[in-house]
Amino acid sequence: MKRVQLAGDLQFSQIIHGLWRLSEWNMTSEELVTFIEDCIELGITTFDHADIYGDYSCEKIFGEALALKPELREKMQIVTKCGIKLCSSKFPELRIGHYDTSTEHILHSVENSLKNLQINYIDLLLIHRLDPFMDPKEVANAFNQLHKEGKVHHFGVSNFLPSQFRMLQAHLDMPLVTNQIEVSPMQLEHFEKGTIDLMLEKGISPMIWSPLAGGEIFTSQKEDAVRVRAMLEEIATEVGATSIDQVMYAWLLAHPAKMMPIVGSGKIERVKTAVEATNISISREQWFRIYVAAMGHPVP
Amino acid sequence: MKRVQLAGDLQFSQIIHGLWRLSEWNMTSEELVTFIEDCIELGITTFDHADIYGDYSCEKIFGEALALKPELREKMQIVTKCGIKLCSSKFPELRIGHYDTSTEHILHSVENSLKNLQINYIDLLLIHRLDPFMDPKEVANAFNQLHKEGKVHHFGVSNFLPSQFRMLQAHLDMPLVTNQIEVSPMQLEHFEKGTIDLMLEKGISPMIWSPLAGGEIFTSQKEDAVRVRAMLEEIATEVGATSIDQVMYAWLLAHPAKMMPIVGSGKIERVKTAVEATNISISREQWFRIYVAAMGHPVP
Amino acid sequence: MKRVQLAGDLQFSQIIHGLWRLSEWNMTSEELVTFIEDCIELGITTFDHADIYGDYSCEKIFGEALALKPELREKMQIVTKCGIKLCSSKFPELRIGHYDTSTEHILHSVENSLKNLQINYIDLLLIHRLDPFMDPKEVANAFNQLHKEGKVHHFGVSNFLPSQFRMLQAHLDMPLVTNQIEVSPMQLEHFEKGTIDLMLEKGISPMIWSPLAGGEIFTSQKEDAVRVRAMLEEIATEVGATSIDQVMYAWLLAHPAKMMPIVGSGKIERVKTAVEATNISISREQWFRIYVAAMGHPVP
Repeated sequence: MKRVQLAGDLQFSQIIHGLWRLSEWNMTSEELVTFIEDCIELGITTFDHADIYGDYSCEKIFGEALALKPELREKMQIVTKCGIKLCSSKFPELRIGHYDTSTEHILHSVENSLKNLQINYIDLLLIHRLDPFMDPKEVANAFNQLHKEGKVHHFGVSNFLPSQFRMLQAHLDMPLVTNQIEVSPMQLEHFEKGTIDLMLEKGISPMIWSPLAGGEIFTSQKEDAVRVRAMLEEIATEVGATSIDQVMYAWLLAHPAKMMPIVGSGKIERVKTAVEATNISISREQWFRIYVAAMGHPVP
Repeated sequence: MKRVQLAGDLQFSQIIHGLWRLSEWNMTSEELVTFIEDCIELGITTFDHADIYGDYSCEKIFGEALALKPELREKMQIVTKCGIKLCSSKFPELRIGHYDTSTEHILHSVENSLKNLQINYIDLLLIHRLDPFMDPKEVANAFNQLHKEGKVHHFGVSNFLPSQFRMLQAHLDMPLVTNQIEVSPMQLEHFEKGTIDLMLEKGISPMIWSPLAGGEIFTSQKEDAVRVRAMLEEIATEVGATSIDQVMYAWLLAHPAKMMPIVGSGKIERVKTAVEATNISISREQWFRIYVAAMGHPVP
Repeated sequence: MKRVQLAGDLQFSQIIHGLWRLSEWNMTSEELVTFIEDCIELGITTFDHADIYGDYSCEKIFGEALALKPELREKMQIVTKCGIKLCSSKFPELRIGHYDTSTEHILHSVENSLKNLQINYIDLLLIHRLDPFMDPKEVANAFNQLHKEGKVHHFGVSNFLPSQFRMLQAHLDMPLVTNQIEVSPMQLEHFEKGTIDLMLEKGISPMIWSPLAGGEIFTSQKEDAVRVRAMLEEIATEVGATSIDQVMYAWLLAHPAKMMPIVGSGKIERVKTAVEATNISISREQWFRIYVAAMGHPVP
């Protein structure tokens, strides 16, 4: 599989595996080890976490599997996130879900992630959401300390709009190496708000969450979903894809921003489907037929 | 009271007094002197004017008081604005309210302000509104001349969106030291449009007008006002505030952009209420409870 | 006529002639030569094309006229555009109108334009629309090669929003010298989206298409058109304009961004009308009366 260079010493597999539903899969640690090995075998070496996934449980489940086979660590890149405080039975004192990007919370969250994942460094740490109460100096302090201590090698953001990305970057000594954003034929927001333009401007590859639009595309009877699905099926036939999810992956993979879609399935067959999409090339015209179906009107 | 550094030689009190309604207070010059002294006693040393306030009358009223006790001048920072041409009985030839940021008008307006205020320099001059007919070179010419002549020490803007701020700054030799914008739990526009992001990016503290949402919040039966008011009352109880306006000030004062709220009351008790808010600290979680009530939906 | 400096060695007439409807005029090549000479006589030396105008036919019609009098070439500046693939009977294999800003397509399109126009260089080449599938490195490659070969002297864009302009510029060795955008009292989008701010920031003069709002303004009974038309008629009387189209041109010409309106008429009388507008000066207040009528509400 093609690999994407995010920094001098950081390469991701272009397809990334996301573990936000890991806690629902009911795998034993042994089964999870096998699943991880199968992913790596397929060329997927990058695994995407967040402190909050599975009500703060997914990192721990992953860490327990990793502990059974610690030599896997060096074969993978681990991404995790911090900055959201979720309402949870684990934090009954919390009165509202909110964001926390204070130095203290970032440091605390990373300690937890390292402990839960049973690793001694994180390849890439992302600020999960733009915090309207963010003090960029606090974030910079945390990043500097984590980098100096070797606990986090690289930093990035998620769901940041351009003004937010520029704001945080202006206060950092190191470059933000990615922005994890939602893009799919059902979600064109970041084409419209300049986020993808900024990524191209700076030569930064975005990680893409919900590349299949949360699955809604497969069954929804809403007008736009029906329209996009019909086009995806048409293109699937043309390019010999086995399913429309391959076309959605291929649509992202074809984009010049070097988008890295995150596959969130715990079924290795679904993961294979995504990996096979890296061999499907869709033409510029096909890309636009999907884009136009997604917009619901021709390009001007 | 905390002071905010706007430039090497410019510090504002974090609470600012705004005089846009001065002409309605019916104070004698002696009463106004006392009011100003009381403000300074409370730590408020920064006074915010505009040429147009009170149908072009407020600067003059203030100047007449200042003339009674000229030694007050050096204890305060005076901000004023130019760039709006208001329909007024004083300018019967004007056919429409509009903006004028020509070199000629800026120079002319500052001369008037200096004369009306009975002072020989302005600490900070703001362009009042983004003029869609602005020639940034004309503004730069005016600023350079006023600075050279010592008539204005520092420059800024008001109500400028990011693209407008960047545009004007690109043509100036001196930094714009603030952007006076409207922010309150009833007005989140500048969180959404990137203005606050830009202020944080550049380390610029915004002055905040209408921090109490023009008073509407106290009585309105509109759904959003009712919702926000209920939350402000809840937080007021938690932090021991005497009123919800203190919570609104504290909400602004807590923000990392070092926001400087402008208090517009002519009653010293109301001013005291604002000053006391500088001793109220609200937690990050309380900040978000207000923000979420203001948005009307949880953070994503 | 005033000339606008776009680069060290590139000056445009402030009024530009646009040939997007040339194929509908049914002129002989001799008549077109006369028309071009009349334009130049009036001071209009800049002619705006695109590969796609007239279903890919306008450049060729112009080129055939130019071939009759090749000495005209050095008296004019020729602008053309590429990047749109239009559904056309000439390209029956095309399934959807889309954009193509690949190196290959840009080079190919310029070769066609040179051949059709019967010239050996283009003064200014524009990317016609923002391509959401654009790889800015591909554009940069094409521009570098075209510049090196002397086939295109300068480069710009059309209809680009600020984030798109910044993105492409970041990858180019040469400055983008213009952005051709739609502006008229019926189309204020680029005032609102920061495009004009960016042009002022960078000191770039925009070319303006549809300065007369596609003619709709003259006849439409829609509320906004009626309101704007009434104001244009009022101003026409005040400034002694012979028609409201002169006022619309004068409104653009007065703007500090040094806007260059494109006149698209094949009737020399209509062209003269536009040229005469360069002698009409409208005041700042008149400019705002039109702007306010266009917005439908007073300035804040």
